Amino acid sequence: MPSRAVSAPTAPRPGGPLPWRYPHLVPETPPATHPVATSGPVKVVGTGLLGASLGLALRAAGVPVQLADASPSALALARDIGAGSPAAGTDREPALVVVATPPDVAAVTVLAELARHPAAVVTDVASVKAAVAAEVEADAGEGAARYVGSHPMAGRERSGAAAADADLFAGRPWVIVPGAASDAAAVLAVRSLAVDVGAAPVTLGAQEHDDAVALVSHLPQLAASLVAARLRETPEAALALSGQGLRDVTRIAASDPQLWATILVGNAAPVARALREVRTDLDTLLAALDRAATEGPDAPGATGPLAQVVAAGRTGVARIPGKHGGAPRRYGEVSVLVPDSPGELGRLFGEVGEAGINIEDLQLEHSAGQRVGLAILSVLPSAVAPLEAELDRRGWRVVAR
Amino acid sequence: MPSRAVSAPTAPRPGGPLPWRYPHLVPETPPATHPVATSGPVKVVGTGLLGASLGLALRAAGVPVQLADASPSALALARDIGAGSPAAGTDREPALVVVATPPDVAAVTVLAELARHPAAVVTDVASVKAAVAAEVEADAGEGAARYVGSHPMAGRERSGAAAADADLFAGRPWVIVPGAASDAAAVLAVRSLAVDVGAAPVTLGAQEHDDAVALVSHLPQLAASLVAARLRETPEAALALSGQGLRDVTRIAASDPQLWATILVGNAAPVARALREVRTDLDTLLAALDRAATEGPDAPGATGPLAQVVAAGRTGVARIPGKHGGAPRRYGEVSVLVPDSPGELGRLFGEVGEAGINIEDLQLEHSAGQRVGLAILSVLPSAVAPLEAELDRRGWRVVAR
Repeated sequence: MPSRAVSAPTAPRPGGPLPWRYPHLVPETPPATHPVATSGPVKVVGTGLLGASLGLALRAAGVPVQLADASPSALALARDIGAGSPAAGTDREPALVVVATPPDVAAVTVLAELARHPAAVVTDVASVKAAVAAEVEADAGEGAARYVGSHPMAGRERSGAAAADADLFAGRPWVIVPGAASDAAAVLAVRSLAVDVGAAPVTLGAQEHDDAVALVSHLPQLAASLVAARLRETPEAALALSGQGLRDVTRIAASDPQLWATILVGNAAPVARALREVRTDLDTLLAALDRAATEGPDAPGATGPLAQVVAAGRTGVARIPGKHGGAPRRYGEVSVLVPDSPGELGRLFGEVGEAGINIEDLQLEHSAGQRVGLAILSVLPSAVAPLEAELDRRGWRVVAR
Repeated sequence: MPSRAVSAPTAPRPGGPLPWRYPHLVPETPPATHPVATSGPVKVVGTGLLGASLGLALRAAGVPVQLADASPSALALARDIGAGSPAAGTDREPALVVVATPPDVAAVTVLAELARHPAAVVTDVASVKAAVAAEVEADAGEGAARYVGSHPMAGRERSGAAAADADLFAGRPWVIVPGAASDAAAVLAVRSLAVDVGAAPVTLGAQEHDDAVALVSHLPQLAASLVAARLRETPEAALALSGQGLRDVTRIAASDPQLWATILVGNAAPVARALREVRTDLDTLLAALDRAATEGPDAPGATGPLAQVVAAGRTGVARIPGKHGGAPRRYGEVSVLVPDSPGELGRLFGEVGEAGINIEDLQLEHSAGQRVGLAILSVLPSAVAPLEAELDRRGWRVVAR
């Protein structure tokens, strides 16, 4: 993996800025301009994708990192990619312990670390929070004041330290979940950790978090899996008609079954609640479709319920915030035919850039049977007309939508 | 819509090549090199998105187009954007009639056109085929030999002639559905029409087609709507955690409810069959989640079924063909942090082009709270290492995945 070298830590600069090597790539709230608040040492327990990535990010910021993992080989891999040094008896006491184990052992690990390091703030990064919080608050006693739950929204279809990345958290939301007993200093320490690795901290209650991820993360995952599962026996001829819609709906179905099973059982009640609502609507659809199948398309009660469910979805999707976590906004679209050969896409974007227009979002539509693609550029509504005129002037084939 | 001008027909060149104005944008099988086989006149009945787009494409190829629509205003709009001339008693008899009405009136319209034009080949572009074919074959008598069903896979979230586009069919599959009675010349005429407007013809049986679109088009639409419908009441704080996964799964939920209701009732049985399979898996998930919710995450029979459904989806999604209708292939991915300012994406693609590497696919990950994005470039596996090295050399922040 040559790319790993790129993310390997540079010379530690204790307390110094994050080494963003390319000033022109620094985001609006630039890590480069704020010294890291996390002094460390930070102990990372569990060196999978999240733990190892966190180690890389902290080491790159000059923060000493101690690593622990139940698996010696996983630990060795994390050490070898530069995520930190294996924890040893001779270590300085960590100021902060991050538990990045699988969710099913997060709580017991948090309790053990609270006991092992009586002065340390302890957090976990499990993707489900209420269960962990309840167990810790029940058994940690005094220690509960030093525990703060958290959840960096930075999953990935690959897992393990081999996929680790110092930039994994850059620009992602990092949910901070203070417990009833958490003291302010502990909350600040975890919040600082999120900011120091480039994430955007968001504070939520444990149940509030779990209900949220059930809807915005767990339900979509299951829907994608349920649709994709239907394609196991589909004839090639049918699959050849696949369009961008199917590809988008099923993309995340490629995720890791074991990891997802663990996440889902950990958030069973909220996910079941969401799935039950889906099933109610699904039964409505089935009743309407059966009516149409038996009595014909004009059967009373066939079209109406179908249109209502599609309309409800249209209302819901409009509520998803736009990029950068901003309020939803309508961008205008400019569609351009682009030949599928090296540099053409580059030429297009270069010329859009020369026109001083920012591309807010982009979608590539694949063409079946021909090597020409459709690039759909989302730009500010006010920029649509000038951009279309400019691209046309430059000889691009702008497509009316 | 300044872009409409771009798609407006150029001076007709009867029998001449399609006027691809930009040689560097001609796809691999370039329309520019084959004269159109469709001589016309072609009569288009129904001047919505598909009918008007077809008119634009044929006119641009120098083929005379006669337009008809039940709505005088829709007809006038199609005429005004250059899709053809309103059909008149004085017209030459059309050689080909394309019925582009809503699916629920397609069959009756096909029958009327077969009777009205005793020498013409008649096709329809309804997105559901078995019902139309059955009705036509039952009532057309001799005329059935001149009917061939078809379905250009070129839908769009917008509708009406206002969204028409001469390039709508470029590179899209166009399903040809010969009936039992269709004669060879009629099939060839419809196939030629598809090729002449830049589509990739695919021959399927009516039921085969309907079963296929139920799985690759109708089911994903309903799944997107069902997930998106859950977001109607979701708190803003929860929606703020939305990631690319939710956005992808729900994108097509923005489609037109009335149009979809008509499509779904027209393909009720196959869609219901697919939905029932989904419901069976969904019940399996609910049973497992309920077990976990009541007996805890380690309850027997909780994790297993969840992992199985996710694994089944993983198997299915792997069967979706890659772009250009080719066999699924594994591309390598190169991920690069890109600041969200004009020209940066362009600079990136330009430099990838200079490196002589073709971008097979592209995905932009949005960042919440920061104005920096992650561009994930899909390239041939052999190109990953050289591209990462080159981009790193040029000062880009390549991200390990």
